[in-house]
Amino acid sequence: MRALVFDRSLELHGDYPDPVARPGESIVRVSVAGICGTDLEIARGYMQYHGVPGHEFAGRVVESQNPALRGKRVVGEINAGCGRCAACSAGLARHCPNRTVLGILGRDGAFAEYLKLPDVNLIPIPDSITDDVAVFVEPLAAAYEIFEQTHLARNQTIVVLGDGRLGALVALALKGEKYLPIVAGHHREKLAQMARLGLETAEESALRDKFDVVIDCSGSESGFRRAIELVRPRGRIILKSTAAAAAELNLAPIVVNEITVIGSRCGRFQPALDALTAGKIDPRPLIDHTFTLEEGMAAFEAAKNPLNFKVLLSAT
Amino acid sequence: MRALVFDRSLELHGDYPDPVARPGESIVRVSVAGICGTDLEIARGYMQYHGVPGHEFAGRVVESQNPALRGKRVVGEINAGCGRCAACSAGLARHCPNRTVLGILGRDGAFAEYLKLPDVNLIPIPDSITDDVAVFVEPLAAAYEIFEQTHLARNQTIVVLGDGRLGALVALALKGEKYLPIVAGHHREKLAQMARLGLETAEESALRDKFDVVIDCSGSESGFRRAIELVRPRGRIILKSTAAAAAELNLAPIVVNEITVIGSRCGRFQPALDALTAGKIDPRPLIDHTFTLEEGMAAFEAAKNPLNFKVLLSAT
Repeated sequence: MRALVFDRSLELHGDYPDPVARPGESIVRVSVAGICGTDLEIARGYMQYHGVPGHEFAGRVVESQNPALRGKRVVGEINAGCGRCAACSAGLARHCPNRTVLGILGRDGAFAEYLKLPDVNLIPIPDSITDDVAVFVEPLAAAYEIFEQTHLARNQTIVVLGDGRLGALVALALKGEKYLPIVAGHHREKLAQMARLGLETAEESALRDKFDVVIDCSGSESGFRRAIELVRPRGRIILKSTAAAAAELNLAPIVVNEITVIGSRCGRFQPALDALTAGKIDPRPLIDHTFTLEEGMAAFEAAKNPLNFKVLLSAT
Repeated sequence: MRALVFDRSLELHGDYPDPVARPGESIVRVSVAGICGTDLEIARGYMQYHGVPGHEFAGRVVESQNPALRGKRVVGEINAGCGRCAACSAGLARHCPNRTVLGILGRDGAFAEYLKLPDVNLIPIPDSITDDVAVFVEPLAAAYEIFEQTHLARNQTIVVLGDGRLGALVALALKGEKYLPIVAGHHREKLAQMARLGLETAEESALRDKFDVVIDCSGSESGFRRAIELVRPRGRIILKSTAAAAAELNLAPIVVNEITVIGSRCGRFQPALDALTAGKIDPRPLIDHTFTLEEGMAAFEAAKNPLNFKVLLSAT
């Protein structure tokens, strides 16, 4: 099959081996895949990953032992657990210590014609949402994870640090759930795009108030430090960015001001899929370009442009 | 009056000015005061504090406009808020941005014959508990603060990092409330003392399991890093120590493993006082030495000895 493969560098292969399903796994033909920040990091060597990257996708099941899945349009949870450990038993395969992760860890991903995933990871999608909407379920699930982890009151003040992909989705999810977040960033053009999506925006350096909740989606080393400055005593920081700078970070204010810091990563797909199906969020204005798999290198270049929110790869 | 005064160095003054109560304040004659880690830091220049240190005390009200307080044995909340800001309005004077703090920030403390505090800070203590028990209300309140901030289930595994003063009190509070913490430290003699108090102990470097909850009372720069290693995915770290090392600290596991970090400092006095009154905790075995105010310098030297849990100053 055709696939984008990372092995020291990213290359298009015309004859990459088709995935072979093991018992309990299905084969999916990818229709659309999204490029996210993690893919760009993988293309720079992150996770020492070798293989096909890509973990945001929508597609159709073309081979399955499970009649409920055969022929269905699906999205797929990206963490495949061992099914036997304490985390898996608690329904938290995404914290399984032995997990593989689609396109990130030990499992070829979605920048290819086909991929394989365990049947339990696949979630059929309604006819009412198109593939270019469904492809947002994975990144949006990371936004919805916040609601699974902590209760936010509707009258709390919330600032989202970061005007990039994740910041936009987190802010749209909050808005879709009737919160009133402020998106704070450094890029005037991106903040203008956010404003066109109906989001309240602010120049980050101009923020003076203290907020009940600060959500760090900055992806930058200074994000956590800025979050500590912006959160009120007894407030919460939700840490979505793994780039937090350790150097020169003074954690004493966390203790003195009794801040709660909540690390937050992937989420369950269903709440995000439900929100998209209900029309609470329309992510399509975030799509800047759609490339074919053959144009994969150009697609990655486009995804690197900080002014682009979302670049898609279409396998058809 | 006689007082220990810090101004570049710690000295005993025989003629330090008596405190003068402002409206709404009372004067307390100190009977017993405890030396804690913060006092040792202040004696090294922490907080750029100048004046009388000391914030753990029990005493008797000798001057007050409030008849409910006059002549009463009391302990006192150490944070004096402005009474007007959002934090004070929410009952959180200990997070008031304009607060003074007894013996720590802008207000002379308890290593003296007399101190003054707002009436609202003073809490009468029952006759059934002695001064050398009541003096533990302040540090124990910091332990009870944990229960105010987060819900711990009785069947969760809890490790307390640190075999010092705070670690001992946190562990005793947990044990008093029917939890089963393990105290982990480096000092064999101190762990043996903890074991004599009925606490389960462990050599920290020997810990291999992952815990639901890790409480960092280490006071050491490596405590937070070790806490990140010891907590299970989706678990909680309660950060009681402000000494966390920023350098070389990788925060990515907080996000990837979705750890919640809860900064925790001072607490309300009442739950701690109630626990002492009910006999849930007997802190007296933690007292190593009691010195007079005149022996203050020797008392500080004794408090620096890491094998000592608690050194008291008696004003009488």
